[in-house]
This record gives sequence, structure tokens and C-alpha cells, in this order.
Amino acid sequence: MRVTDDAPARSSFKRRLHTIIFEADTPAGKVFDIALLISIVASVVAVCLESVEEYRAQYGRELIFIEWIFTVGFTAEYALRLYCVDKPMRYARSFYGVVDLLSILPTYLSLMFAGTQSLLVIRALRLLRIFRIFKAAQFLAESQLLAMAISASKRKIMVFLGVVTTLIIILGTMMYLVEGGQGGGFTSIPTSIYWAIVTMTTVGYGDIAPVTVLGKFLAAVAMITGYSVIAVPTGIVSVEMARAAQKTGFEVSTQACPSCSLEGHDTDALHCKYCGAAMHPPQEG
Amino acid sequence: MRVTDDAPARSSFKRRLHTIIFEADTPAGKVFDIALLISIVASVVAVCLESVEEYRAQYGRELIFIEWIFTVGFTAEYALRLYCVDKPMRYARSFYGVVDLLSILPTYLSLMFAGTQSLLVIRALRLLRIFRIFKAAQFLAESQLLAMAISASKRKIMVFLGVVTTLIIILGTMMYLVEGGQGGGFTSIPTSIYWAIVTMTTVGYGDIAPVTVLGKFLAAVAMITGYSVIAVPTGIVSVEMARAAQKTGFEVSTQACPSCSLEGHDTDALHCKYCGAAMHPPQEG
Amino acid sequence: MRVTDDAPARSSFKRRLHTIIFEADTPAGKVFDIALLISIVASVVAVCLESVEEYRAQYGRELIFIEWIFTVGFTAEYALRLYCVDKPMRYARSFYGVVDLLSILPTYLSLMFAGTQSLLVIRALRLLRIFRIFKAAQFLAESQLLAMAISASKRKIMVFLGVVTTLIIILGTMMYLVEGGQGGGFTSIPTSIYWAIVTMTTVGYGDIAPVTVLGKFLAAVAMITGYSVIAVPTGIVSVEMARAAQKTGFEVSTQACPSCSLEGHDTDALHCKYCGAAMHPPQEG
Amino acid sequence: MRVTDDAPARSSFKRRLHTIIFEADTPAGKVFDIALLISIVASVVAVCLESVEEYRAQYGRELIFIEWIFTVGFTAEYALRLYCVDKPMRYARSFYGVVDLLSILPTYLSLMFAGTQSLLVIRALRLLRIFRIFKAAQFLAESQLLAMAISASKRKIMVFLGVVTTLIIILGTMMYLVEGGQGGGFTSIPTSIYWAIVTMTTVGYGDIAPVTVLGKFLAAVAMITGYSVIAVPTGIVSVEMARAAQKTGFEVSTQACPSCSLEGHDTDALHCKYCGAAMHPPQEG
Repeated sequence: MRVTDDAPARSSFKRRLHTIIFEADTPAGKVFDIALLISIVASVVAVCLESVEEYRAQYGRELIFIEWIFTVGFTAEYALRLYCVDKPMRYARSFYGVVDLLSILPTYLSLMFAGTQSLLVIRALRLLRIFRIFKAAQFLAESQLLAMAISASKRKIMVFLGVVTTLIIILGTMMYLVEGGQGGGFTSIPTSIYWAIVTMTTVGYGDIAPVTVLGKFLAAVAMITGYSVIAVPTGIVSVEMARAAQKTGFEVSTQACPSCSLEGHDTDALHCKYCGAAMHPPQEG
Repeated sequence: MRVTDDAPARSSFKRRLHTIIFEADTPAGKVFDIALLISIVASVVAVCLESVEEYRAQYGRELIFIEWIFTVGFTAEYALRLYCVDKPMRYARSFYGVVDLLSILPTYLSLMFAGTQSLLVIRALRLLRIFRIFKAAQFLAESQLLAMAISASKRKIMVFLGVVTTLIIILGTMMYLVEGGQGGGFTSIPTSIYWAIVTMTTVGYGDIAPVTVLGKFLAAVAMITGYSVIAVPTGIVSVEMARAAQKTGFEVSTQACPSCSLEGHDTDALHCKYCGAAMHPPQEG
Repeated sequence: MRVTDDAPARSSFKRRLHTIIFEADTPAGKVFDIALLISIVASVVAVCLESVEEYRAQYGRELIFIEWIFTVGFTAEYALRLYCVDKPMRYARSFYGVVDLLSILPTYLSLMFAGTQSLLVIRALRLLRIFRIFKAAQFLAESQLLAMAISASKRKIMVFLGVVTTLIIILGTMMYLVEGGQGGGFTSIPTSIYWAIVTMTTVGYGDIAPVTVLGKFLAAVAMITGYSVIAVPTGIVSVEMARAAQKTGFEVSTQACPSCSLEGHDTDALHCKYCGAAMHPPQEG
Repeated sequence: MRVTDDAPARSSFKRRLHTIIFEADTPAGKVFDIALLISIVASVVAVCLESVEEYRAQYGRELIFIEWIFTVGFTAEYALRLYCVDKPMRYARSFYGVVDLLSILPTYLSLMFAGTQSLLVIRALRLLRIFRIFKAAQFLAESQLLAMAISASKRKIMVFLGVVTTLIIILGTMMYLVEGGQGGGFTSIPTSIYWAIVTMTTVGYGDIAPVTVLGKFLAAVAMITGYSVIAVPTGIVSVEMARAAQKTGFEVSTQACPSCSLEGHDTDALHCKYCGAAMHPPQEG
């Protein structure tokens, strides 16, 4: 967080600053990014520690001091980011811009309202920048592939969750009718629905559990159903993942058409599917 | 639920009513569907809240009043649906027809029998209409794909569940023989089978847990088996999902080359990848 | 269990008996199989009920009587099976032969040793015959496909389980070193290994749980590892399932070679891969 | 562990010793490997038993004696391994070399520091040699396939775990803000994050569980998210597994047609499926 001290405003300096703060290609940019990540991890750890009773009792003063140092540092960094981009408003409204702002606000708010410091863990979101540091391009490709697969599965997952939610509401109510007032913890329909979710997702805390024979039977049916049903989203995502991998050229041929140079052909293609030119001109014969 | 007041019977009116109530294409139909969905959610929430001790104590009277309003509204809607379809009996016997009827009966039954109100959550099933509202066709395709994959997996899943059920019965009995009377909760074979289901599905409440060394060893074997076995339904569904996706033309075009009549082209193919002929002969030229 | 009364020994009678008892194609065979399945279910339920304290107290005498009736019936059935097959020893040593024998022994043993009745649930294994009744051939194909996929995954799953077991032993010991004597239940290495299995398989009873900070940290790492690792057997089985499906002609062409009539060709094959004959003789040109 | 007595140093003896100790092809080598594995299992079991209070009280002396016998045996084996390889340092620094050393150190350390014996379970890692004994080549191929798939999934899994970790930190903090001080066990942010991991991975101990309505609602959302999210690593590994299987020639032959040089033939193909030429020109005819 040494960066905060010197800030003379010249255009070439602005550009250099931009390279250091926003890129991770140059040595200086890499050093800055690593220092930033270490600061973020340290500040998140500090916030976590402060929430532990005994640490707060012993080191409360020091932890608040550290928190303010990080906040001032991040504030300076935020100001520099705003300063050195060409379109400050666009950055400020972007995902990382909003996260960067939210990462410093809670400390200032804590001057007015008590207990807002915990909100500082939103800084954890800043850690997602981590992928920029090492071999950014490759990680980007992987992220895009994952995002593609998840986005393609979205509607199917929604249909699936819609059906599952309805089943869970009805199962929860049935359990309430069967187990309500039996001492198993099924004190109301919302509680029973909560139990149904805990059970169908195989989390199974055990704070609520059926005690009657019929209740246990219903629960057993629900578990076996949930066990089979968990296969569905997995199947959806697997298929989309395979398709995404295919589309992004992992499984298709990497060969470009020699005529129109478009890519994405199947490996067994003899002719370009876009322009019809022969793909492998075989030794001119 | 304003719809209930005016009901003059003319054929064109009947048709317009049908469009509003059964379709979601027109603005009026969309408004009706959204209002209906909000009513259903609100009424399900009201039923849930009524089951909570403290809310019933404080707002019991109001909740019952709300329930009656919704019931009268849904009754009117049900009557209108029966009125405006051509074959009322066919609707009445359809899945949604039965659900619509079951959604209003419990309130009337509660006049005779106490405690039937909870059955009103069956209204949640009506929420499945939700997919009609936005981009119905796409969701329908996704639902059909899911249904196809699940239906194709049905027999395999049944074989699998048959084998697993047998294993669970035998495992439960072995645990009863080993752990029975040791204080771990394995008081009878049915209880032990219930434990086996809770364990094999990885729910793991912990209300029943082995205490002897042999029992823990058996449980460990069962868990590792269950852990490997959970892979089977997932594999089944994944494979069927991939196949269903292929069949419904999501992955490859079903179009054959007009020249060599080979198939298996991508959906974005302009030329046949085998002979190079144009795929979509544009405007007969 | 009416079959036990008449048993005159003639060859054609023997053959007819074989058809009834071992096949499910004829009406008589189907009736016999269904009656048998109902008897098996009823007898398993009776054994389960007998293990419940209160039922044994109230209906103990009746349940033992029922048990003897079923045992006598199954003994007669076993004798008839031995009688009407051509090679009785081969049946007796087959899987179902052994199961059939084990299904009747415990009742006789209970005359000498107390507490052996519970072993009668081994009768549940006889339920696997259920698939013979409806559309046997299709279920057989599905079972074979499942068996093929699981058998093909066997070695990979063994390698996987070998590595996971080693990890679990080391994790368990680490937790014992960290948590031993802290009151969380990690009283010995075997107990800690048991905990590691319960955790890695995501069962999570909660009877043993870490209480120290380092222990919780280790547990968290183990859980996230287990969460990622569960993907491996699923992946293995999915791939083998897809391959098995392909091999059994679900995804390959159903076309037989017109020359050598062998099957199993890829859908894009132009020539038979066994004899080299052209696959689609195109309009004799 | 008889091997320790005779060690005359001759080159041919050295070579023979190397064959016995490092290979599993010769009968002597196989016997040695099996004896070694049994010793390792026995010594790990002894260490486990020693950690159980009651066994230590009763057989403590004998167990320590056994431990020393195994340690002396393994030390001799380690010395022989160092002696009979050509490059001792390379072996000493290899994975198994380090494990072999770590497997004997704790016993010697226990002379100086109490409580180090438990570290002996590191011997479990030596069990991974087990795959050498039976059909080593096949298991090696399977292991490589698994390793390939996991290595190929590495980056995607890292991106996935990065995002999930961030979500877990934020979820944990939200639960701390909602449930902190309500008696559900959410006493600090680290504890809440631990709960979030326990819940998202569907382990669900139940030692910490939400008690407020909002907390339960958040938990339910987290569970359903975790339930859908578990599909992602499975999808990743499945796809990579399928790809690895393809690459290592399990599914298609790598042989090209000698006539048209097209590839992608099945392993049982006798003729090229594209041109019909014979695939394996038998005995030069």
C-alpha cells in the first residue's frame, strides 16, 4: 500500500499507473497485484478475527487500527483507479468498481453505526481478481467454458428447481400433518419445509427428525427420491459442459478453412461447412 | 380475483374468456396469469403462516378470513374454467383440473372436519403453471427434454433402486444384529433399515449411529459403498440426457445434404461437410 | 403356497412344473411368480415386525406361527425346484439356489439357537426375481448394461478407492493428533478414521465433530476435497455407461452388413468393418 | 522381514536383490512384495490399536515391542533399497524414498519426544505400492487415465473452488450477522464460515444450525445452491474422463487405414470403414 504517497498528474504517468494498477503483464503490475491480494487476504482475516470474542477482547484496539490502515489504503487505491481510467463512471458502475467501493464503505459507516464492520468481508469478492495474475488467458478460457455451460443449463436447472420446490413444499406439509405435535421438531409448515430441504439435499443436520413410523417411512421415500433426483442437475451440467467444450474448439478440429479461414469444423469434415472448399487438398492429385 | 363479478354468457365472450384464462399470449391473459400466480403464492404463504403457533394466536382470525377470500376466488376461477372450455369433463379429469379442485376443497371440508386447512398447500402444484408465462415454448422444450431423459432412464433407475433396496434391507438387518440393544438406537429391524437409508443416501441425521466397533466398521463399508453407488444414477441420467439432447436436435441439425444426402451437419453449416454442396439452396436459384 | 399338496412324478408333469416354477411366460407361471413375490414380501415384513419390541410382546406367538407357515411353504418350493430341474446340483449351487436354501435355514436353526430368526431377511434377496415378471427381456438388457458399466469401471474404482482409503487413514490420524483429548470424540485413531469416512462421504452424523480451530480447519479442507473427489467415481461410471450404451447398439447403427450380416457398425460407416463390403449400395449405379 | 540377515556385497547379488525388492515380476519379487504389504498393514493396525485407550492399557508393552520389530525391519529394508539401487540419492529423494524414510523416523523420534508414534500411520502411503503386485500394467493404465483426467480438470476445478470459496466466506458472514448471538452456535465469522462449508458440501453435522427464521431461509437457499453446484465438478471430471479415455485409445483404435489413411476405426475393425481396404495386412501376403 506504498502507492498512496506520490500522485503527480501527467498523461504518460496516468498511462503508466493504469498499466500498473489494471494490468498484470508488466513486472510492476504483477508486484502491485500480488501486494493487493495479500492486503485483501490480510484484511479479510483481520475482520474474521475481530468477530471472535476472545481476540476482540485481547487485540480489539489493534484490529481496529489495522482495519483503518487497510481501509485508507483501499480508499487511495480506489481513488487512483478512478483517476487513471479514461471513463471513471464506467469503472465505478462495473462489477469490480461497485465491489471496490463496497469494500471501503463499512469502515466509514462504522463511525456512525456500530456493527457494520462485518460487512467488510465483501472484500473477499475482490479476491476473484486472483486469476489475473498467473496465466490469465488460460483461466479466462476455463471460466468462460464454465460460465457457458452454466448459462446453457440455466433454463433446465430452473425447470428442475421449480418442480423440486413444489415437491418440497408438499412433502414438508405432509410431514407436518404426520409429525406435527409428536416432538420431532415439526412445529409448523415452514419448519417442516426447512426440514424437507435439509433432507432432500442430503445435508441432514438432525436437529429435526421424524419420530413416528409413518413419518420415518415418508422421510425414507423422500431420501431415496432425493438420491435419484440429485442425478438430474449433474446430468444437465455434464451434457452442457461436454457441448461447451466441443464448441470452444477443445474437441473440434483446430484447422481453419484454407479458403475462408473460418474455424470450428468437425474433425471428419472433408469440406468447409461455410464455403464448401475442400479442407485437406490431398497432394494435388 | 376481480374476474368473478361479470359473467354474461355469449359464445364470443366464452372464447375471449378462454383466451384470457387458458392462454398467456395476449396482454390480458398474461395479466390474469400473473395475478393468479401471485394469489397462489399469497395463499400458500397464508396457509404456512397459519401453521405457526404464534401467528395463529395473534392473527388467526385474519388468516382464516384471507383463506376464505382466496378459496372463494379460486372457486369462481374453477367454475369459469369449467364454463369456458368445450369439454368440461376432460378438463376436470386432467392433471391441472384435479389439482384446481383439490385446491379449494380443504377449506370447505374444514367446516366439517378440523385441521384440513393444511391440505391447502396442494395449491403449490398450481405454481407449475408458472412456466407458461415467460417464453413458454422454450421452457416446454427443456421440460420435454428432461422428461424424455428421465423417462428413458426409468427402467434402469428401477433396476438400480431394486438392487439398492435389497442391499439396504440386508444391511439394516445386519446392523440390528450387531448393534441391537447397544444403546445406539438400533431398536428394531425397521428402525435399522431407516438408518441404512439415512446413511446410504448420505443424509446422516445422527439420531441413530453405531456405537460398537463392528457396527462402525459395517457403517464405514456401507458409506463407502453408497459413495461409489451414488455415481450410478448420475451416470444413467447423464447418458440419457446426452441422448435426449441429440434426438431433439439441439446438438446437430437433422437436415440432410440435398446433394449427397449425408446427415450429421452442425446447425450452422452452410455447406455439406462431405461433398461441399450448398446446404440451404436459397430462393430456388 | 397351494402347490405343495399334489406331487405325482411323471416326466410331462415335471416339465409342466418346471414351466410354472421357473418361467414367467405362461399365465400359470406368472400367477406362481406373483404369489411367490407376495409371500416373500409378507414374510420379510413379518420378520421385521417381530424385531419391534411392542409387536413381539403383543403378537409374538402369531408372528412365529406365520414364520413357520412361510418356512414350510418355501421348503416345499425349494424341494419342488430341486425335483423338477434336470441338474439339481447346478441349481443348488447357483446364486438363487443358495439364496433359496439360506431363506429357510434360519427358522430351523432357531429351534436350536435363539435369535437366528432375523437372518430370515436374507429372503429379501429373492425379491430380485421380480424383474422376471414384467417385460423380463427389457429389464435384463438394462441390468446387463448396468452390470457391464460397473464391471468396466471396477479397476478404476478400485484405484480410486485405494487412494481415497490411504487419504482417509492419514486424515484420521492427523485429526487424532490435533483433536485427541479435546472432548470432540476423537478418542483413538480408529474412531478418527471412522469420522474421516463419515465426513468424506458427506454423511456427517455429528456424533463426532472437531472442536479446536485447527481441527475445524482440517475438517473444512477434507470436506471440500471430498466434495470435489465425489466427482471422480461419477465421472468414471458415466463414461463407462455411455460406452456400454454404445456397445449394446443403442447409439451405434442398427444396420447389419448386407454381405456378412455382422452388426455394430458406426453410423458413418460406408464399408463393413469386418468384410469390407459396401454398406449402402447406392441405387445400383 | 527375514531379508535382513545376509548381505554379502557382489554385483550380481546386488542385481538380484534389486529384482526382488523393486520388481514384482519374479516369484521371489512377488513374495517379497506381498510380505512387505502384509507387514505394512500389520504395523498400521498396530499403531491404530495402540491409540485406543483400553488396548494401550492392556497390551501397551507388546504393541511397543511389535512396533520396534517393524521399525527395525523397515529400516533394514530401507538400507537394502539404498544399497542396491545405482543412484541412492535419486531414490532417497523420490516420493516413495521419502515416504519410506518417514515411515521409520517416528519410532526413533519417540525415544526423545513422547507421542510421535501416531505419525507412523504415514506408512499407509506405502500401501499404494499394492497396485504393483497384480496385473500392474492394467492398473497403471487406469491410474494414468484417472491422473490425466484430474490433471486436465485442475484449472477448471480451481476456478470453481475459487468462486465457491468466495461465496462461502460471504455466506458465512451473512449467517453470522443474522444468527450471531441467537444461540445457534454462530459465535464468530470463522465458525460461521466453517458452518457454511459443512452445509454447502452437504456434510451437515448439526452441531451448528440456524435457529432464526431468516437464518433458516438463508440456509435453505445455500443448500439448494450447493445441491445444484455439486453438479459442476462432476460435469468437469466426466467430460475430462471421457476425453482421456478417448485419447488413450480405449475407445477407438489409433491405427490409420493403410490405404486411405483415415483414422477413427474401432479396435475390432478388420476393414477400413471409409474405403473398405483390409486394416491388418496379415503375414505380408
